[in-house]
Amino acid sequence: MNHADENKFEPGQPTENHATRQLIIASTSTVFGGEYLDYLTDEMAQLFKDTDEIIFIPFARPGGISHDEYTDRAAKIFKKINKKLVGLHTFKNPIEALKTAKGVFTGGGNTFVLVSSLYRLQLMQPLREAIFNGLPYLGTSAGSNICGLSMQTTNDMPIVYPPSFKTLGVIPFNLNPHYLDPNPDSKHMGETRETRIAEFHTQSTVPVVGLREGSWLRVINNKIILKGKFKARIFEQGKQPYEIEPDTLINFL
Amino acid sequence: MNHADENKFEPGQPTENHATRQLIIASTSTVFGGEYLDYLTDEMAQLFKDTDEIIFIPFARPGGISHDEYTDRAAKIFKKINKKLVGLHTFKNPIEALKTAKGVFTGGGNTFVLVSSLYRLQLMQPLREAIFNGLPYLGTSAGSNICGLSMQTTNDMPIVYPPSFKTLGVIPFNLNPHYLDPNPDSKHMGETRETRIAEFHTQSTVPVVGLREGSWLRVINNKIILKGKFKARIFEQGKQPYEIEPDTLINFL
Repeated sequence: MNHADENKFEPGQPTENHATRQLIIASTSTVFGGEYLDYLTDEMAQLFKDTDEIIFIPFARPGGISHDEYTDRAAKIFKKINKKLVGLHTFKNPIEALKTAKGVFTGGGNTFVLVSSLYRLQLMQPLREAIFNGLPYLGTSAGSNICGLSMQTTNDMPIVYPPSFKTLGVIPFNLNPHYLDPNPDSKHMGETRETRIAEFHTQSTVPVVGLREGSWLRVINNKIILKGKFKARIFEQGKQPYEIEPDTLINFL
Repeated sequence: MNHADENKFEPGQPTENHATRQLIIASTSTVFGGEYLDYLTDEMAQLFKDTDEIIFIPFARPGGISHDEYTDRAAKIFKKINKKLVGLHTFKNPIEALKTAKGVFTGGGNTFVLVSSLYRLQLMQPLREAIFNGLPYLGTSAGSNICGLSMQTTNDMPIVYPPSFKTLGVIPFNLNPHYLDPNPDSKHMGETRETRIAEFHTQSTVPVVGLREGSWLRVINNKIILKGKFKARIFEQGKQPYEIEPDTLINFL
């Protein structure tokens, strides 16, 4: 594996056609008390309305489960909306598969593992281009993290060393999925999520959207809209964090 | 900055004299309701009994504070035990400073920032050798994380990209500082600390010691002993996690 070659991926270089984007970028796959993806099925059916077959990117491997096992788990849910889900790991030429895909879903797990796999297989750039060319894309958790400019506001442990922290950059900010408010009763002295994001802003000017579980971003052409029942928390360098309401257009970042 | 050169650091290569190690490796600098380092002052006075001057490594920069500011904060505490604390950033030749140091304290903050700085200044190897040569070392949080074989079980956000995740390797396992038990009442669907460490063990055979706040490891020559009031949680690949009592010798890992 040649890290130097993999690092050639440079978001911002290819033509970006924001007017064709179609994405659901969700904080979590599963809300408390719910089943896998159930709160999103209506939105998913709408996103993938023009295709019966969707490619699944299982590389984030939650809990280390196999690609097959993860694909099977997700495929069961897609069957309910009459869609066939096919694991990207089953294609001989995954780059070509992404170029011709009619829909992609990237599941959650460990963002470091996911990003390392995407670089190793040289899929970061083709996936980015496909999304800007109108590929309908669903991400949850780690699969959402990679939509941002970098994975540097992930909550995950660095269990593998990726060749870069740069990610797809199909939205012009970073995400913090599973965003968690500080617990005022906590006696734990570790950093809160808000403190961690403030530390990120000592190093970067990239805004961060803290997406609470049950929230998602719906990207339709040029618009990025907060969906779900909850507010999102916005972090910008040098500003006090602030909340935005559901259905807010967040193109201002 | 040449990443290839920095990656030359290879723990395990130099002569390791475990019989001369003198370390305090603490989960946190501050316990709930306490002041900075106050629960550790007796142990610190003992560790640093043979020197009046200790070098402070401020590079983890909690909340992004400056090296001077962080050194001043820590120096106030060391004054109480009649020790002078000098920031490593004030030395013209920090490599030489570590080689001749009589005591070192590395404070907490962001482990990615700390590790990036240590590599950039080529300090990882000199610090490792100094510790194996008997340099008394105190670490808290990020400063403890770097004592393990890698920083891959840190809780911190990857806000900068270090040239490697390898760390000092002056103890033969990894740490998870600020270890936090799962909250049975939580409705949050993000991974627990235990789940994250289990994911690490899908990638690595390195054991992990979950150190609760208020616990520390005291390394005296060949012995590594759990200190403080709390049990620690041990994670080994392929085993159920288990607890060990204070004052347990953990040379078995």
